[in-house]
Amino acid sequence: MRFVDLIDKKKKGIEHSQEEIKFIVNSLMDGTAEDYQVSAWLMAVYFKGMTLNETACLTKAMIDSGEVIDLSPICPNGEHVLDKHSTGGVGDKITLILIPLLAACGIPIAKLSGRGLGHTGGTIDKLESIPGFKTDLDIEDLIKKVKDVGLAIGSQTKRLTPADGKLYALRDVTATVDSLPLIASSVVSKKIASGADYVVLDVKYGSGAFLKTPDEALELAQWMVNIANKLGKKFHAVITSMEQPLGRAVGNSLEVIESIEFLKGNMTPDIKELTYEMASLALVQLKKAKDKKQAYEIIDETIKTGKALDYLKKLIVSQGGDTKVIDDYNSFNQATKTFEITSDKDGYVANIDAYKIAYTCKLLGAGREKKTDSIDYSAGVFLRKIYSEPVKKGETIAVLYANNDEKLKQASVYLKDAFTICENKPDERNMIYKII
Amino acid sequence: MRFVDLIDKKKKGIEHSQEEIKFIVNSLMDGTAEDYQVSAWLMAVYFKGMTLNETACLTKAMIDSGEVIDLSPICPNGEHVLDKHSTGGVGDKITLILIPLLAACGIPIAKLSGRGLGHTGGTIDKLESIPGFKTDLDIEDLIKKVKDVGLAIGSQTKRLTPADGKLYALRDVTATVDSLPLIASSVVSKKIASGADYVVLDVKYGSGAFLKTPDEALELAQWMVNIANKLGKKFHAVITSMEQPLGRAVGNSLEVIESIEFLKGNMTPDIKELTYEMASLALVQLKKAKDKKQAYEIIDETIKTGKALDYLKKLIVSQGGDTKVIDDYNSFNQATKTFEITSDKDGYVANIDAYKIAYTCKLLGAGREKKTDSIDYSAGVFLRKIYSEPVKKGETIAVLYANNDEKLKQASVYLKDAFTICENKPDERNMIYKII
Repeated sequence: MRFVDLIDKKKKGIEHSQEEIKFIVNSLMDGTAEDYQVSAWLMAVYFKGMTLNETACLTKAMIDSGEVIDLSPICPNGEHVLDKHSTGGVGDKITLILIPLLAACGIPIAKLSGRGLGHTGGTIDKLESIPGFKTDLDIEDLIKKVKDVGLAIGSQTKRLTPADGKLYALRDVTATVDSLPLIASSVVSKKIASGADYVVLDVKYGSGAFLKTPDEALELAQWMVNIANKLGKKFHAVITSMEQPLGRAVGNSLEVIESIEFLKGNMTPDIKELTYEMASLALVQLKKAKDKKQAYEIIDETIKTGKALDYLKKLIVSQGGDTKVIDDYNSFNQATKTFEITSDKDGYVANIDAYKIAYTCKLLGAGREKKTDSIDYSAGVFLRKIYSEPVKKGETIAVLYANNDEKLKQASVYLKDAFTICENKPDERNMIYKII
Repeated sequence: MRFVDLIDKKKKGIEHSQEEIKFIVNSLMDGTAEDYQVSAWLMAVYFKGMTLNETACLTKAMIDSGEVIDLSPICPNGEHVLDKHSTGGVGDKITLILIPLLAACGIPIAKLSGRGLGHTGGTIDKLESIPGFKTDLDIEDLIKKVKDVGLAIGSQTKRLTPADGKLYALRDVTATVDSLPLIASSVVSKKIASGADYVVLDVKYGSGAFLKTPDEALELAQWMVNIANKLGKKFHAVITSMEQPLGRAVGNSLEVIESIEFLKGNMTPDIKELTYEMASLALVQLKKAKDKKQAYEIIDETIKTGKALDYLKKLIVSQGGDTKVIDDYNSFNQATKTFEITSDKDGYVANIDAYKIAYTCKLLGAGREKKTDSIDYSAGVFLRKIYSEPVKKGETIAVLYANNDEKLKQASVYLKDAFTICENKPDERNMIYKII
């Protein structure tokens, strides 16, 4: 088999056999394929797509390229381990809330998560904004912690799906990231290699997501669910709107604080809608509740009794963090500069552009562009007013946090445009487009 | 400017600016672009194509990446220097005939030509089958010889269009050769850098050519003519059939012999049709004849008087070859083995599959697959019977030449299928599809 012939085949839209897909991934791993051949193949995939069979084979081959975590020690009685994945959004702190909540409901959680590349940090970055919190767990450590306290979260390890790592690095510099089967394959391979057998996916669309329309998001979700099925795993996907930021806080420690508040019972409605939906899917699927109604009652109860918050505390203790943050938000690193954006008229918030909020956070220092960039955990935006809330002229609608006057000034100028204030109260919006 | 953004642009079908094309070629040349980025861009070009503006810019940038030969010393009175290019066919020895013929008509010829990669050799290989013939001329040498004897032919130098060389090497291993704008740009850049300002192109289609249909060939021809026009040069293109081999001889020295015979007045009709057509185009364009009719008379005369053959002799002497070959074909290296294919019925030759003849020649050792392969100059096929000629059962229709029994046997088995013998004489065929 010659790599150039496989490029030609894909270019002509001929389906690869399982052996051919294996050959591609093996050649990538053992270095017999040249990067310039792999990238030409990737571009051909971008244009001609892949069939479900091809994509499932690619996913399997990427899983097989590295270690697969065996979580059976956590589940001596055959319980299922849950994982959750979001395609990324602005102010998306659902993982921070969902993990302690579901662990408190008796579902073991062993999660590997990524650092953020982009305008704001990823889940790992957010957790690391808690002083002392460590995420560089090795796999044995991760399993031990789940056994001890019921949940653990680690940063992704290179021992899992190294082929995906190589492929992604190449896609990133050759404009071939935005291929649905390649995206789906990358996500599903990581999730399966992490040992989960049940995954709830949050696939987002809108100005603050990389997919712009609900139909694109649905298509990607379908790919992931189908690949997982082909490989014998059950995935659910929730397709959700990311036209506006999720909740009020965007920025690393700001989002942790909003999550803690949520677990204390102070719930922003959009976060509540998503959290309850995803948690109930898991509770029903993993037989902790007989239906959605019962699941909602369990969630209510778990939060009301403080059990969910307790599990967040357990997680922080277990991973070396300072639990003082739970009751004293001043224990987080504090931004030295703030700036308040005020409304220039009376009315209602009709839109907050998620992309603009994200870009503001980037300007403030809350994200990174390269893996080696450092992140300012305290930087970010807090939205005093969100969708459909009334606002008066001169009233503060958002507060910016930073540690640098220059950045703050630049961001404050940019941010102003993000808000649309209208005379009449806008219609209620629906966060969830579809569940599959 | 970032290369990845240009890949993305091409992927989306957005036209590159002149600066962007220059950036691509410069990055390729100075090594700031990674091969894997260039190959992804090439695959995007394959799918999204290029506009005429982009292609002309690419051609210009490739020309500018190396030396451009200045042929003005050859033409003190502003005459035009002619070049000829064929996209390649089976038994295509037109260059060997056309060059001495036109030189004898007073048109200075400075030609750079390639070695063949494929089933049979290129023009350079054919000439090198003449004992002693040297083609590794440097540019100064080439110009001096044209001044002295009116014509010269050298093998391509790396000093010209090095960007095309790099790009082609990458295309070859990434299945991105077959993109019309890229093919056109490659040919035109080499021709213009070689110093020619008037070029006659022979663009072939059919089983023995890489383009299969007349319309594809026409499209490629149009690309080349248009690019040349954009860059201020005049190119003519003849779109010709390569369904059947050209003439009777296929193989390096066999084709030189057929060319010598042609210049002695023994003309195979299809070769005559093409040679006269292309030569007359040049004679009219370069004002050596007022119209096609006069051009044909000049050609007839130049051959009949032996002037064209004289110029071939001059070329051979000038480049160190042994002119004995002109009168004594035994002066060529001789194949030690021959095999005759006979007809199994009476009838007329209705078809000779050009691809099969080419592949037979490859089996016999007349071509090369890698640049470093050696060529057997004496190997090849001589067609005793060609299209529309009558044949009797048991009569020899083709003779195979080789130096290896094994190869000869393999080729003779393969070749049989190449001939179609029918009961009735087939219609006359038209070699020339179109001239633009």
